[in-house]
Amino acid sequence: MKSFTYEWEAKVPGAFMYHCGTPPVLAHIANGMYGAIIVDPADSEQTFEKAREFVLVQSEFYKDANDLEDMMNGEPQVVAFNGKAFKYKDQPLEAKPGELIRFYVVNAGPNNFSAFHIVGTIFEKVYLNGYPENVDKGVQTVTIPPGGSYVVELRVPEEGAYPIVTHSFKDATKGATGILKITKDAKDQPLAP
Amino acid sequence: MKSFTYEWEAKVPGAFMYHCGTPPVLAHIANGMYGAIIVDPADSEQTFEKAREFVLVQSEFYKDANDLEDMMNGEPQVVAFNGKAFKYKDQPLEAKPGELIRFYVVNAGPNNFSAFHIVGTIFEKVYLNGYPENVDKGVQTVTIPPGGSYVVELRVPEEGAYPIVTHSFKDATKGATGILKITKDAKDQPLAP
Amino acid sequence: MKSFTYEWEAKVPGAFMYHCGTPPVLAHIANGMYGAIIVDPADSEQTFEKAREFVLVQSEFYKDANDLEDMMNGEPQVVAFNGKAFKYKDQPLEAKPGELIRFYVVNAGPNNFSAFHIVGTIFEKVYLNGYPENVDKGVQTVTIPPGGSYVVELRVPEEGAYPIVTHSFKDATKGATGILKITKDAKDQPLAP
Repeated sequence: MKSFTYEWEAKVPGAFMYHCGTPPVLAHIANGMYGAIIVDPADSEQTFEKAREFVLVQSEFYKDANDLEDMMNGEPQVVAFNGKAFKYKDQPLEAKPGELIRFYVVNAGPNNFSAFHIVGTIFEKVYLNGYPENVDKGVQTVTIPPGGSYVVELRVPEEGAYPIVTHSFKDATKGATGILKITKDAKDQPLAP
Repeated sequence: MKSFTYEWEAKVPGAFMYHCGTPPVLAHIANGMYGAIIVDPADSEQTFEKAREFVLVQSEFYKDANDLEDMMNGEPQVVAFNGKAFKYKDQPLEAKPGELIRFYVVNAGPNNFSAFHIVGTIFEKVYLNGYPENVDKGVQTVTIPPGGSYVVELRVPEEGAYPIVTHSFKDATKGATGILKITKDAKDQPLAP
Repeated sequence: MKSFTYEWEAKVPGAFMYHCGTPPVLAHIANGMYGAIIVDPADSEQTFEKAREFVLVQSEFYKDANDLEDMMNGEPQVVAFNGKAFKYKDQPLEAKPGELIRFYVVNAGPNNFSAFHIVGTIFEKVYLNGYPENVDKGVQTVTIPPGGSYVVELRVPEEGAYPIVTHSFKDATKGATGILKITKDAKDQPLAP
């Protein structure tokens, strides 16, 4: 057994995927060897406005953790946000009516593109890779490639339950569905979950 | 049987998909329960230039309208613009040489990403989600996620037949192919078809 | 046998795909009937900074060159940069530490979207379709639709071997993996390979 330590200086602000580089990388990612890194801007002019923030990592799981053939040519059995199918359907993410909400969304793949959308809402601003200057406005759904990311911001004026999905609905049906619950009673919280 | 009425104020300009929210959403979208909404900018500074305008909705149909398993793990049998395979191949969309043409393109999915392209042309300007400020220039093909949209503008200087496709050619071959016919005889028409 | 000659004036700068239009287009692209065209800006204000430049075309090959059914509903057997699986894994593309590197990346498909990424690096700037004004910054992975392109720029400060992939790892595993070797001994060269 050997151990490695990676050290680096985070120079570029944004939301990034990290994953192990042990071959076969496809199998390692499909078995959960990844995570997200959020780098806040060092430059105060690039700093995002205060908001309620969430980090979501979309990823796929295949039938058999060792079946590389299925990962290469088959379809995933489960697609999840933060590692578990329908995790935030039973335990919704909460926010208050009208407040600024920011999602850092990383797509770990290993294979499928994400069509990130929150039903019943339109993103006010979206930032490709979370870089503050890469801004687009008024977007319903963003394309996030495996190994890529988007930061999206929205405000929801009315209370209710708004489904968080990849709008590639075969993957939403396999687990990449959660609930954003808008309620006056939402508790304050730091970067979550 | 129950009936619902949704009311909302359209605040964000652009091209949007709507679809029913009855579960399973995947099956409902795969059976045609969707449409497009075009919201013109209220702000005159954001208003698009006068053009010949078309609305296209790309979508997939599966072998069996009730086979959710096939929709989740199989391939579509038909991919169409505006509901019917090769609809505009026999009945081309017409425009005049040199005039500004604008397509509002919504991808209803439910699963596949669109690579929208018109063979023999380069889009002069493309607008992510149809928001007037989200402009890019000189683009041959745009990625449209399921549940997403693009507005694209072009001018075609010479008469001829220009194929409209998703450049993911397996889906073009299944029906997502039409013809943009450039002819001096193109009739004037409002937003079409 | 008949022969055609296409003539046109290249008016829009960027990286473009060309392919034959003989039906079935899907089969012709899947058999390699395509290429890339790089159009340099005529306007000196749009001209890219001097850099070490590479052109990569990603594409898929299917089991049987004549099996249209497999191309429409199956998975590719090989995915390659510049026509051959793992071409630049054994013969890495070389550049020097710290120098500006520019990749013109065209995705010929015919079907799959590319998630272009170079492991261990972040693109300084990316240009949708290679149009100089379509710039985004600090991006780890770009989505390139079949029939589309991106120009990406990076600098790598330290010597080493950096894998070039589509981060849709099923396709990387099938051959869309190369190596960018950063070494002080990299030879000067024109647009390559």
